Amino acid sequence: MKLASLKNGRDGHLVVVSRDLAWFTDADAIAPSLQAALDDWETCEPMLRGLAESLEHGAVPRERFHEHEAASPLPRAYQWADGSAYVNHVALVRQARAAEMPESFWTDPLIYQGGSDGFLGPRDPIPLVDEAWGLDFEGEVAVVTGDVPMGASREQALAAIRLVMLCNDVSLRNLIPAEIAKGFGFFQSKPASAFSPVAVTPDELGGSWRDGRLHRKMEVELNGQPFGCADAGVDMTFDFGTLIAHAAKTRSLCAGSIIGSGTVSNRGPDGGPGKPVAEGGVGYSCIAEVRTVEMLAHGAPRTPFLKRGDVVRIEMRDERRHTLFGAIEQEVT
Amino acid sequence: MKLASLKNGRDGHLVVVSRDLAWFTDADAIAPSLQAALDDWETCEPMLRGLAESLEHGAVPRERFHEHEAASPLPRAYQWADGSAYVNHVALVRQARAAEMPESFWTDPLIYQGGSDGFLGPRDPIPLVDEAWGLDFEGEVAVVTGDVPMGASREQALAAIRLVMLCNDVSLRNLIPAEIAKGFGFFQSKPASAFSPVAVTPDELGGSWRDGRLHRKMEVELNGQPFGCADAGVDMTFDFGTLIAHAAKTRSLCAGSIIGSGTVSNRGPDGGPGKPVAEGGVGYSCIAEVRTVEMLAHGAPRTPFLKRGDVVRIEMRDERRHTLFGAIEQEVT
Repeated sequence: MKLASLKNGRDGHLVVVSRDLAWFTDADAIAPSLQAALDDWETCEPMLRGLAESLEHGAVPRERFHEHEAASPLPRAYQWADGSAYVNHVALVRQARAAEMPESFWTDPLIYQGGSDGFLGPRDPIPLVDEAWGLDFEGEVAVVTGDVPMGASREQALAAIRLVMLCNDVSLRNLIPAEIAKGFGFFQSKPASAFSPVAVTPDELGGSWRDGRLHRKMEVELNGQPFGCADAGVDMTFDFGTLIAHAAKTRSLCAGSIIGSGTVSNRGPDGGPGKPVAEGGVGYSCIAEVRTVEMLAHGAPRTPFLKRGDVVRIEMRDERRHTLFGAIEQEVT
Repeated sequence: MKLASLKNGRDGHLVVVSRDLAWFTDADAIAPSLQAALDDWETCEPMLRGLAESLEHGAVPRERFHEHEAASPLPRAYQWADGSAYVNHVALVRQARAAEMPESFWTDPLIYQGGSDGFLGPRDPIPLVDEAWGLDFEGEVAVVTGDVPMGASREQALAAIRLVMLCNDVSLRNLIPAEIAKGFGFFQSKPASAFSPVAVTPDELGGSWRDGRLHRKMEVELNGQPFGCADAGVDMTFDFGTLIAHAAKTRSLCAGSIIGSGTVSNRGPDGGPGKPVAEGGVGYSCIAEVRTVEMLAHGAPRTPFLKRGDVVRIEMRDERRHTLFGAIEQEVT
């Protein structure tokens, strides 16, 4: 089942989208918003699945689905906790600034509390006030949970995953060092993120969803050029069950909580940093990582952060090259 | 005007409460929840104020208001950003662990992104899984905003304050150092917080609300003994307008965003750390601060963190000793 929130008011208008993303049908008779559906998932899920089946069979009124009319599936959420599960990415960034990475990073998940009161739509521009802030994108996988009790096990956490989507975790790289130095984590350096036009139930992903990981390539383009195609199922040190259980160690998580994977990142075949797509590698899912690799190789970064007019596109396809979640495509303005 | 959310479902049931907190009347004909009222404040505020006036005049059906039937005014919220505006508190804590505090802390607000997907009610127990985690309370003032545009000025931010309330920002002190060391801020060390039974509009506070600060004493009791009575209007380096503008520098804030002051803390008359209430001082609004003072005075902390069965009470009164927000009173279980 695929769900989207068409732009409408603060929480969007819930629709069921066909598997091929060509059509939608209204779901507001079942729940006015995705959050409302998640709040009462036991009641709503079977009704939404019935509607999705009817849509596939052309048995209900339908309209063309246009990705640019979609808000993020949850236009605002009560919880957005973003992990950093591809520890390879963290190790690389640390290496570039000659900072040692504690060994515990391989066993104790890193997660930050994100702001969730307003997400950009998947085709909304990214507002850039000051290029000196170092605007970057991050291609991530994210899941939406049901209620997760405090102290949930990894297995309970995995069972609570309701939906999967993609994320562009927008970051202001040059504001990060000062915020980190203050010891209170990110705030100004993590402005509003965006999610894919469509959120899908795990069963929709077939064998690509296994071990709490999504085994598909994260296709990232910058200004129409391939930038990355790392496999989200590879080098993900902590699966979503482990990330969710970590987040729920000292508090419960409310239905509709979004948990992110952190920037998808694959090592090179030699175990070192991967190569750019142009050199036959799988590339990167954010600019910071390519700058890190450039720093290691050439002593200085070469790829600039985002400027006004730049366009980033993040998408994932199935084995027949059909889009799974629709594309996040955002211009910097 | 005073508003509360009686416990009911995920978002509570909106009621208007009389000035003396003795009575309430249903407000769900105006808005089903406080978040819904904040989402459409221009429409709802005058209607709620009319209802509040009718309640004071006994002109509408009313029932007894019991603080223990109230959830936090926003039982869950889209944004909870907690400042650390009483820099004296930060300076003290740093001094105790012989860590230098950057001079910039006096001019650049410190704020962390809190989790907001589920708050404890003002009389709900605080669940403690492991006493070794170092459970602490923090008495704070918090405001609820309307929509705040990105880049808002301090004046715009002040004008966007809709409601004021008290907060017990629950902290797990012994989990903080490891999380801070990881560089991603607090997560597990900041479990669910609680807010006062009632949220009030700034005008209700009269002259006590001025300069973006609440000039009343934060009365904190631990197990029935006075623990602190620091004035929330004193030594608050950053007012709420400055805190909100800081939070909105790189992103807009959605209506219903909660911004916290951080632990209320007053210096002693000599400019140094204040004395305990028993020694004639104004005491403290959290255990960490008294432990810090003990460390500085005796070389080791003496006051333990919270144990099961401990009861913390946080309240604020007007000049006639009438409660303003009702009391947060929580037992550790």
